[in-house]
Amino acid sequence: MDGIAFLNPIYMNLQKTTKVIAFDADDTLWDNEPFFQNVEAEMCKIMAPYGSAEEVSKHLFAIEMDNMPDYGYGAVAFTMSLIENAIKFSKGAIPANDIGRIIELGRTLVRLKATPLKGVSETLQALKKSQKYKMVVFTKGELLTQENKLKRSGLLPYFDETIIVSDKKEPQYNDLCTKMGIESSALVMVGNSLRSDILPALNIGAYGIFIPYEVMWQHEVIDHFEHERMIQIERFEELKGVFGVESL
Amino acid sequence: MDGIAFLNPIYMNLQKTTKVIAFDADDTLWDNEPFFQNVEAEMCKIMAPYGSAEEVSKHLFAIEMDNMPDYGYGAVAFTMSLIENAIKFSKGAIPANDIGRIIELGRTLVRLKATPLKGVSETLQALKKSQKYKMVVFTKGELLTQENKLKRSGLLPYFDETIIVSDKKEPQYNDLCTKMGIESSALVMVGNSLRSDILPALNIGAYGIFIPYEVMWQHEVIDHFEHERMIQIERFEELKGVFGVESL
Repeated sequence: MDGIAFLNPIYMNLQKTTKVIAFDADDTLWDNEPFFQNVEAEMCKIMAPYGSAEEVSKHLFAIEMDNMPDYGYGAVAFTMSLIENAIKFSKGAIPANDIGRIIELGRTLVRLKATPLKGVSETLQALKKSQKYKMVVFTKGELLTQENKLKRSGLLPYFDETIIVSDKKEPQYNDLCTKMGIESSALVMVGNSLRSDILPALNIGAYGIFIPYEVMWQHEVIDHFEHERMIQIERFEELKGVFGVESL
Repeated sequence: MDGIAFLNPIYMNLQKTTKVIAFDADDTLWDNEPFFQNVEAEMCKIMAPYGSAEEVSKHLFAIEMDNMPDYGYGAVAFTMSLIENAIKFSKGAIPANDIGRIIELGRTLVRLKATPLKGVSETLQALKKSQKYKMVVFTKGELLTQENKLKRSGLLPYFDETIIVSDKKEPQYNDLCTKMGIESSALVMVGNSLRSDILPALNIGAYGIFIPYEVMWQHEVIDHFEHERMIQIERFEELKGVFGVESL
């Protein structure tokens, strides 16, 4: 167990006040963003006759932002934007079969294996076994895409609830607390995004545990910051120290 | 109020046992399927150079069924299948700009106004005002698409909960009861689909109120049947008679 756990007063507090630990899924429990970036790179190769990868990606990002209110976040939404971008950026010149290739690239994202990141299974198991906390997956994205990834990950048995939302802002965090029947101070959100996981949780009075991930989607990037109710850790298994549970 | 309400013993029973009324959304609260069929007809016009509308639709349906495990139900899923069908059915011959037109057709479905069907607003208002029952929207489909339609419909204030699921089968109906903290016999499901709304509800011991809709998606069609815990009504406002509430 990590000795640091006993030096930080917020750790002691967390072990007393926490009733529900909510976990982000993509890039917290399993890799996600690198696969998206890889698909985008492959798409740029298909689009090479029409412009540089940089230009294509810039155009794509604008289309993704435009489509956000209609399609939301997720692999299917991303594929729709890839297709629209391919047509518009090529000014209708792209052959249908290349669009077909882009659809198949997108399908790999829908079918991601969602292999748990290092330490995730063992840590979730220890937390679950301790029976100290309710454990929830709290993820934004597409209902079926996220459900399927969670099933494929093999992590489903560790969670009491799966809550998939179209966006993760303050109202959804308040709803989460209502659903779980707790005060916001009894919630800890664990995730890799300051923007979606940590800031809104802190804003409603909950705690945040920030585990930065190596690759970040442009849309999620935010400046570094500190907060009295936030802990930053480097490895998922440090959660055992934070919550005072032992490995089996 | 409908006099028939007092002749059928199931009505009296329902008023005593019901705690939660769950409502399907598409084609129960607002028109949906006719817009999908209209988009399909427009797509068939675009595809006319490659085959008859009948052939194109048949090919599309097969692709929709193949895509179901990945994309699920909904307007974005449908659009993805429309695009894939266009490419495959035309053997790659369709120009990208025609695929662009198909994307725009699909977007009209994501942006449906969701105007409440006749009698819906007034009936929901009367049920809400009676304070006798918890009212829930229980719909399958895409999270954001369904949320947006519900917002645009103006019906959101009548509901205590919105529950959007990737499929509506027995396990999801059991979850619904758990979430609402009720026995299955205290649930009534109101909807237009025997397959998704009525049969699974009956199978878990809940009640069903079947309101047939004029147009039905091929995938939802099922033979007519009767059941002791099912009522069939013709008009949404008959629910007032069923649940013994008055118009305002």
